[in-house]
Amino acid sequence: MDFSSFLTSLATSFVIFVALMLVFTWLSRKPGNHVVYFPSRILRGLDPLEGGPLSRSPLAWIRAAFAASEADIVAAAGVDTAVYLIFLSSVLGIFVMSGIILLPVLLPIAATDNSFKTAFDTNSNATFNNLDKLAMGNVHAGSSRLWAFLLANYWVSFVTFYVLWQAYKHVSDLRATARSSPAVRPEDYAVLVRDIPTDPQGQSKKEQVDSYFKALHPDSFCKSMVITDNKQANKIWEELEGYKKKLAHAEVVYTESKTTSKPEGTRPTNRIGFLGLIGAKVDTIDHCNEKINELATKLEIEQKEADKDKQQNAALVFFSNRPAAVSASQTLHAQMVDTWTVTEAPEPRQLIWENLTKKVYERQIRQYAVYGIVFLTVVFYMVPIAAVSAFTTLENLKRYLPFLKSVVDIKAVKTVLEAYLPQLALIVFLALLPALLMFLSKAEGIPSQGHVIRAASGKYFYFIVFNVFLGVTVGGTLYTSMKTIANKPKSAVNLLADSLPQNATFFVTYVALQFFVGYGLELSRLVPLIIFHLKKKFLCKTEAEVKAAWAPGDFGFATRVPKDMLIMLVVFCYSVISPIIIPFGVVYFGLGWLIARNQALDVYVPSFESYGRMWPHMHSRIVAALIIFQVLMFGYLGLKKFVYAPLMIPLIVISFVFSYACNSRFYRSFLNTPLEVAFKDTKEIPNLDSVYAAYIPPSLKPEKTENADHLEEGHTNVSKTETV
Amino acid sequence: MDFSSFLTSLATSFVIFVALMLVFTWLSRKPGNHVVYFPSRILRGLDPLEGGPLSRSPLAWIRAAFAASEADIVAAAGVDTAVYLIFLSSVLGIFVMSGIILLPVLLPIAATDNSFKTAFDTNSNATFNNLDKLAMGNVHAGSSRLWAFLLANYWVSFVTFYVLWQAYKHVSDLRATARSSPAVRPEDYAVLVRDIPTDPQGQSKKEQVDSYFKALHPDSFCKSMVITDNKQANKIWEELEGYKKKLAHAEVVYTESKTTSKPEGTRPTNRIGFLGLIGAKVDTIDHCNEKINELATKLEIEQKEADKDKQQNAALVFFSNRPAAVSASQTLHAQMVDTWTVTEAPEPRQLIWENLTKKVYERQIRQYAVYGIVFLTVVFYMVPIAAVSAFTTLENLKRYLPFLKSVVDIKAVKTVLEAYLPQLALIVFLALLPALLMFLSKAEGIPSQGHVIRAASGKYFYFIVFNVFLGVTVGGTLYTSMKTIANKPKSAVNLLADSLPQNATFFVTYVALQFFVGYGLELSRLVPLIIFHLKKKFLCKTEAEVKAAWAPGDFGFATRVPKDMLIMLVVFCYSVISPIIIPFGVVYFGLGWLIARNQALDVYVPSFESYGRMWPHMHSRIVAALIIFQVLMFGYLGLKKFVYAPLMIPLIVISFVFSYACNSRFYRSFLNTPLEVAFKDTKEIPNLDSVYAAYIPPSLKPEKTENADHLEEGHTNVSKTETV
Repeated sequence: MDFSSFLTSLATSFVIFVALMLVFTWLSRKPGNHVVYFPSRILRGLDPLEGGPLSRSPLAWIRAAFAASEADIVAAAGVDTAVYLIFLSSVLGIFVMSGIILLPVLLPIAATDNSFKTAFDTNSNATFNNLDKLAMGNVHAGSSRLWAFLLANYWVSFVTFYVLWQAYKHVSDLRATARSSPAVRPEDYAVLVRDIPTDPQGQSKKEQVDSYFKALHPDSFCKSMVITDNKQANKIWEELEGYKKKLAHAEVVYTESKTTSKPEGTRPTNRIGFLGLIGAKVDTIDHCNEKINELATKLEIEQKEADKDKQQNAALVFFSNRPAAVSASQTLHAQMVDTWTVTEAPEPRQLIWENLTKKVYERQIRQYAVYGIVFLTVVFYMVPIAAVSAFTTLENLKRYLPFLKSVVDIKAVKTVLEAYLPQLALIVFLALLPALLMFLSKAEGIPSQGHVIRAASGKYFYFIVFNVFLGVTVGGTLYTSMKTIANKPKSAVNLLADSLPQNATFFVTYVALQFFVGYGLELSRLVPLIIFHLKKKFLCKTEAEVKAAWAPGDFGFATRVPKDMLIMLVVFCYSVISPIIIPFGVVYFGLGWLIARNQALDVYVPSFESYGRMWPHMHSRIVAALIIFQVLMFGYLGLKKFVYAPLMIPLIVISFVFSYACNSRFYRSFLNTPLEVAFKDTKEIPNLDSVYAAYIPPSLKPEKTENADHLEEGHTNVSKTETV
Repeated sequence: MDFSSFLTSLATSFVIFVALMLVFTWLSRKPGNHVVYFPSRILRGLDPLEGGPLSRSPLAWIRAAFAASEADIVAAAGVDTAVYLIFLSSVLGIFVMSGIILLPVLLPIAATDNSFKTAFDTNSNATFNNLDKLAMGNVHAGSSRLWAFLLANYWVSFVTFYVLWQAYKHVSDLRATARSSPAVRPEDYAVLVRDIPTDPQGQSKKEQVDSYFKALHPDSFCKSMVITDNKQANKIWEELEGYKKKLAHAEVVYTESKTTSKPEGTRPTNRIGFLGLIGAKVDTIDHCNEKINELATKLEIEQKEADKDKQQNAALVFFSNRPAAVSASQTLHAQMVDTWTVTEAPEPRQLIWENLTKKVYERQIRQYAVYGIVFLTVVFYMVPIAAVSAFTTLENLKRYLPFLKSVVDIKAVKTVLEAYLPQLALIVFLALLPALLMFLSKAEGIPSQGHVIRAASGKYFYFIVFNVFLGVTVGGTLYTSMKTIANKPKSAVNLLADSLPQNATFFVTYVALQFFVGYGLELSRLVPLIIFHLKKKFLCKTEAEVKAAWAPGDFGFATRVPKDMLIMLVVFCYSVISPIIIPFGVVYFGLGWLIARNQALDVYVPSFESYGRMWPHMHSRIVAALIIFQVLMFGYLGLKKFVYAPLMIPLIVISFVFSYACNSRFYRSFLNTPLEVAFKDTKEIPNLDSVYAAYIPPSLKPEKTENADHLEEGHTNVSKTETV
């Protein structure tokens, strides 16, 4: 890519961004769109536009985003979102502080040397452009100017250490503060017990759990809930809910028909066969009512049966106070370590019920199997795609689907198909990848949604780094030179370092595209807007259906974080080789931070709260990116025949030590709740009924609450202990 | 080594063994030697010879050793010794069960083939002897007879899995039973708190610890003991004890002198200068009395000062009940993970006071530094020894110590020196190695003696495996072919497998020597006997001095276990290649088990109790030996051009899975006390004064007990909670 096409691409992206911003400003002021642009505010019962539409100047959202304090963010979108913003601002901070030194120092040093000119004058000018002149590639091999580049690595690294240490401390405090707030959170009073052994005395699981925990926690044990096999109940409940929705829909249609066509109205009808296409025609309202009654009875029977006969080997155990639950969750209970596994309970809405009952060895086998599959997917993902691509050609299409021949032969269609058919498999695969990774992470047997998302995000990160970063950088060369690398692992670093500078411009364009077009779309919410209006016009009849149509969803950290990580990795790796990338990184993370704040305040609603459990994950990936950068720079300095290149080695060692120190200082308080935190501000005795009720799955709700009378004992028991 | 010299060596060893056995039978019946042969019984107040000397037939000890139940062993020598016996009997069981199948099957298969005859007939007969004919080396390459040897690996492995699984379960139960006994053990009521942060409010450490733990454990916190810097107090105390002993000695000497020389007696005198050689002559009794008074006052002052001004950043915290202490020791306390590190308290006699106050990062740095030193020691230990050997030649001796010339030139002395001087460095190094490893393990900052011994034993195991086993097997070839190995790691396995069979006879002789001579010496206790009689005759005057002279010591697991491990590794590795080694292994572990039982019942007194914490360590090393064996067999079968050799790979995988499964089932209950165990049989409320007093170091004893009045509050507090 030469310089002019780079500028063209940049300008185009910028124009699109400005256009999308204008669209956003215009559309977000229309009251009919408020549910798309301010769903979070509306759900929290706030006025979408503070001070009325007139005060909403085009840049008001920027002011609002800046003005919000961290406490506002936590209140609006939870600690996880606040931590995501800290991640963005930390990376932003690293790049700003790196840029302040690197840009004014390294650019002149590179520009005033002329390695490219001398080297390429005789060959061709094609690979030499103005951007490359500002990069490290322009410095002569073995030149003492390389000292500046070596020291730049130290500067970038130490800036990173400083920022990350501060950020980890900040997040740790944020987490502690949030966790020690006096609000009653059900998960603070519960522990998850898995791998309950078969009872030799033939007690029911419920009795077994109760007697076991009552014996070991005589003062603080309150009540238990044995996990039951709810598959059947869930199925009935979902069917029931479906009919309830259908009934509401049909009733609205009937009421409307009274006003539009004839005064007595047309009763809606439907067919009860496959997909409503075949079978007998019935009156929808009558049919639904009938079904609802029938299913409600069935559900009640099933609920009773589940509670009695379908008890599984896992349970939730409730304690009368926070410290007792924290302490229990961290204490080994059984002599046989693979029984009575006790862990902190996830939030009720995070629980993945079907994973709770998986046995300990099953979980381990699943985990390793999933790791194997992910490894194969990451490394060999091109193989099946190439195979499918070889099949999905225009010729095959014509041969196997002859009826399409006339359509395909139209010239315009043919051109498009020829361009996109080979990539179809790739596009489909990339679109399905996040779902596949979520599925795989869930299949590991992880009990909480938040953990699944972290696991999926980790897998996606590996995929992106391996395939996008390494794929683009080394490109085809890597595969052909696999043999050389296998014999001489050191040459891989050299190969990578060698091909790095050639791709700087590509990545600068990539980063710019990401923030201009990506953020433009993110802020303007064009896709959700169009979908909402289509749904509203053609599908939704009831209030609930409209609400479901504008449901904002959450941030989607599983894919969002790895994408940011890729940009971060790219900017890190080029920060010294081609410092001109730094401003683009700054804009990416600056703009990202601003827009994410806006979305946190106005749009997205978190689907769960893990109190920043994502942070150690982010932290270690930033450090990993830093180390990749340092290793590449070590290789590249070596290629430049700089004899002091080994001075990079202590820096790499320091990075590992830093990572280790951070872990040993902070990590365990993310893994387990410290007793200190659990003890803070827990004066009031919670309503343990509501704690218990929070964990009842919706399909079992009416039945299980009847059991709540047991709680009274537990409760009084507690107050007795506490008054001692 | 040819067959006849092998038999000669075996016969010699056996004769020595029989002679030592006779010596033992004869000497152990003399009442004057009872303190050497039955110290453990005497210390426990039992009659040394049950049923009087006449009933003590030469083989009575064998009957007694067999008759003792596991409970007797635990009562006599603790759980650790019982676990060591389980280790011996498990390995014995593995070898017996392996031998039952391997000997009758593999020996005929090997003997009836004749690879050696055809291969070596043309060359020489030197390396071919009758033992080799019974080994796998005698089977033709690629022969289908190798199937039997392949399957033998599976048999040995599955026997090992079975025996180890049973043993782990047994040890785990033994540990749980011992730990849940109603006896009050101080360490069950205490936790060790390290890394106490600097208090911002300027409280004393004691106040800080008390307020922190009172807040987090309001019901169960009882009392704390802040670790003080006792260096000064210890020094004074030791000096004081020394003078006390000296005084007692001098008084006995004085009393004796009254009966022997003149009726008024000779008052003993000594010089107070360097080593008692120079300086003024004083009356010993007066001098000691004077010093004792002086030091007692000094100690009292120092004790007060230590308690006030020398409080360190570590403490022992006492709880009113076992489960509370267990729970606290496993719960994360502080938000900053590197502060308030809480762990289970070691036994009072295991505490290494000077390590308690080491900070968390210091401990980690020390640990890695020690690992580095050990790695270098294991791999390069020959380098300094070779250097020293090059220096300690006869010529150098004569040159630098010319006054020895006349002595050295005597022919007999010269011969001896020429033989032993070059090996002097090696002998000294090997003698000092266990002490060096203990020192290094202690330097890691480990707070408990038992843990230090495990760590030292692990290091010694690496040393022995690397240097003795690999050293002998591969010998010089390994060092010369280092380059080949670096390029082709696979060839290391081949090289090793290739040189294995040649050394079978050497190792058979080694094993036989170990059990005949080693066990003979162990049982006859000739060295301790001689030392005791010499001391008694020339040095000991007081009762206490005599008692110290026959103090039996403990088993010395730090060196004993790795030595057994080496034999085990050798027998494992040769079990299929040369099954004739199995009977020798059986005798080694059988005899070892029998003698260890005798020593446990009659001789050794354990210096601490860790309730079988050594077992996971032993278990994982047995599995490691098994895997080394499997890998070597894989290589050797490959060398034998057996195309089904890859069938060994699943076996290796199974071994890893087995190891992993054992760990996840049992290990954590060795690391932490399960709540279940802590709750068993703790009806009585312990006397917490004695628990506290048990932890007071001897040098601080009189002072600290004064503090015990605080305990009363804690105590009553407890009973209140328990009655709720």
